[in-house]
Amino acid sequence: MIMRPVAVIGAGKTAFGVFPDRDLRSLAVEAGQKSMDNGHVVASQVESFYLGNFAGPAFVGQNHLAPYVSTALGIQGVPATRIEAACASSGSAFFHAWAEVAAGVYDIVMVIGVEKMTSQPTPRVSEILAEAGDCAGEMKAGNTFASLFAMIARRHMYDFGTTREHLASVAVKNHANAVLNPDAHMRKAITLEQALKGKPIADPLTLYDCSLVSDGAAAVILAPLERAAEFTDKPVRILGIAQASDYVALDQKESITTFPAVRLAGEKAYKMAGVTAGNIEFAELHDCFTIAEIIAMEDLGFVERGCGGPYVFAGHTGLLGARPVNTSGGLKAKGHPVGATGVAQICDLVLQIRGEAGARQIPHHSLGLAENLGGSGATCVVSILGAR
Amino acid sequence: MIMRPVAVIGAGKTAFGVFPDRDLRSLAVEAGQKSMDNGHVVASQVESFYLGNFAGPAFVGQNHLAPYVSTALGIQGVPATRIEAACASSGSAFFHAWAEVAAGVYDIVMVIGVEKMTSQPTPRVSEILAEAGDCAGEMKAGNTFASLFAMIARRHMYDFGTTREHLASVAVKNHANAVLNPDAHMRKAITLEQALKGKPIADPLTLYDCSLVSDGAAAVILAPLERAAEFTDKPVRILGIAQASDYVALDQKESITTFPAVRLAGEKAYKMAGVTAGNIEFAELHDCFTIAEIIAMEDLGFVERGCGGPYVFAGHTGLLGARPVNTSGGLKAKGHPVGATGVAQICDLVLQIRGEAGARQIPHHSLGLAENLGGSGATCVVSILGAR
Repeated sequence: MIMRPVAVIGAGKTAFGVFPDRDLRSLAVEAGQKSMDNGHVVASQVESFYLGNFAGPAFVGQNHLAPYVSTALGIQGVPATRIEAACASSGSAFFHAWAEVAAGVYDIVMVIGVEKMTSQPTPRVSEILAEAGDCAGEMKAGNTFASLFAMIARRHMYDFGTTREHLASVAVKNHANAVLNPDAHMRKAITLEQALKGKPIADPLTLYDCSLVSDGAAAVILAPLERAAEFTDKPVRILGIAQASDYVALDQKESITTFPAVRLAGEKAYKMAGVTAGNIEFAELHDCFTIAEIIAMEDLGFVERGCGGPYVFAGHTGLLGARPVNTSGGLKAKGHPVGATGVAQICDLVLQIRGEAGARQIPHHSLGLAENLGGSGATCVVSILGAR
Repeated sequence: MIMRPVAVIGAGKTAFGVFPDRDLRSLAVEAGQKSMDNGHVVASQVESFYLGNFAGPAFVGQNHLAPYVSTALGIQGVPATRIEAACASSGSAFFHAWAEVAAGVYDIVMVIGVEKMTSQPTPRVSEILAEAGDCAGEMKAGNTFASLFAMIARRHMYDFGTTREHLASVAVKNHANAVLNPDAHMRKAITLEQALKGKPIADPLTLYDCSLVSDGAAAVILAPLERAAEFTDKPVRILGIAQASDYVALDQKESITTFPAVRLAGEKAYKMAGVTAGNIEFAELHDCFTIAEIIAMEDLGFVERGCGGPYVFAGHTGLLGARPVNTSGGLKAKGHPVGATGVAQICDLVLQIRGEAGARQIPHHSLGLAENLGGSGATCVVSILGAR
């Protein structure tokens, strides 16, 4: 099977944050309209529509969200499909949209990711998020995602000597980057000491090790590369992409300090793109918790297993480092409206690759990778985008 | 784009009904395993997995359902994707699985539809179902799906002279068919008089005009036709298929007695299959309410607009009629575990086409159509299956 080269021709997102006056649909429509404006696409050209959303029914009491959003954008008649894959919902939607275009099923496909989380009180938000885990097992036993990732962090410390300072350095870096991102939820720099002294959430994780509860939406439009020039002079190529799956429950995994779905999706995406980990110039990684960014770097081959902590701590993934990670501020500081995150990562790659990332623009930005994780590793989508 | 011919190579489903001792995953696993047994497929051969589910998080408190089910079937690593499209969730999943195989992305793809509804009390079930409508608008105003379809029925009566006897005859027929279906939820024949005297739900609809709240699952496995013989000597071809969308809110539609998404999906599916409505020998139509079966026949061109009621009443869609509809008993009597319904319809077409429908087998069964509707017409998937 020869797949057609596919390009992102339009991208747009809302700011991420707490927006009591905005509903889910208005956020999704804003992002969708911005992606159409950016790609010079009109609604009648969209041939297929995907919506990535994790828990709209629980957060805002509305299900059947794909046609609910698409019709509000003036997109009529075409397949309008919602995909749910926990925090990887819109990464998965992006994967399926890519496959449709690559295989020639459709030419112009829109993908929106959206979540409206802040209208629920925090304990209810935790409950809703917990439904992405094994509810009859690990969650019923009293876990939250913070406690699951705390166990993962503790084991990583035990196995590899990772320290709390290593974890905190992820937060410090991502907060610093978010200061430069006008769309970020929390534009506040923090020191290592502040991060270490953060309110305890689940030992060894403090408040600063945890991503934010946010409202927001992001959208991209895909087209075959051969048609991209009809829409934009800055197409961004999807060079490699893969979705992979694994057990939902942590206790079914052989090891909790590595995610097979990340490794598998990464290997497939590298192979498709014809590159190795060493070629990746920058990345948006799924830092739902600081330990997750460290493990992602290991599973994706940026560093050897167990070496992620010192690598971040040494500054290699900062804006001025050899391989910047989460120049957007990441889920940690840009914000993590769950269903929006996967497509937002793609939007952030597009900004860097096009050289439109403003104050956070990095010098080497022609080949970027996005890793979008669902739950404690049961779903992963890895995408490699490039200018050429 | 030349699409590859695609076949259903395996199909399996659970009984539909009230199963207090079964959880969502065990139902999905039973159906999935039966489809593998039926198609002589082993888990390691499955290259992509789709789960159609409407509201697992609300019904059973579990989200991220695709890898939750796939890993329990021993399906490892591959893309595992949940699709939600209200009552058309698994019809949409089937459409996307077909597209993947037709376009050559993957060869062997499994699709499961599942819903576990009966663990919630009836008022909560109505609330959860209402989330497939426009919650901030029509539902907030006090509607349920029964009241929406009651308005549709009332308008159909006003415009076309449809009678309560016409509606009731849909229920009588589907109940009679379900008596012959060992997997049906309600195997109880009813008379026209009983149906007319049913408990009022939303005038003019009685209890017997409404589909059932059920637990259940259904699964199919798809493969390119050229590889079907490796697995089965009874492949069933997918000759035509399309998914279409429309407004979620009823008040945005030009007319409430016809569904543009059904007409559009039907036209596209007929065109792809190279057939007309007149060629279709039998069908599984989405009778969430009796009026929906009547309107589906009209929108799909089985009869002229407004003529559906008398057509059913005259017996043309009975088991012995010219064009049997819902030989399974339909959502009305076979049961309607929402997320399972789309794939269950495909399973029922497969049984008839293969001549394996037992006591309800019809004589002319080589070309069948399934119509799976989401909400009050915002999503529709039409599939045309045949022996050749």
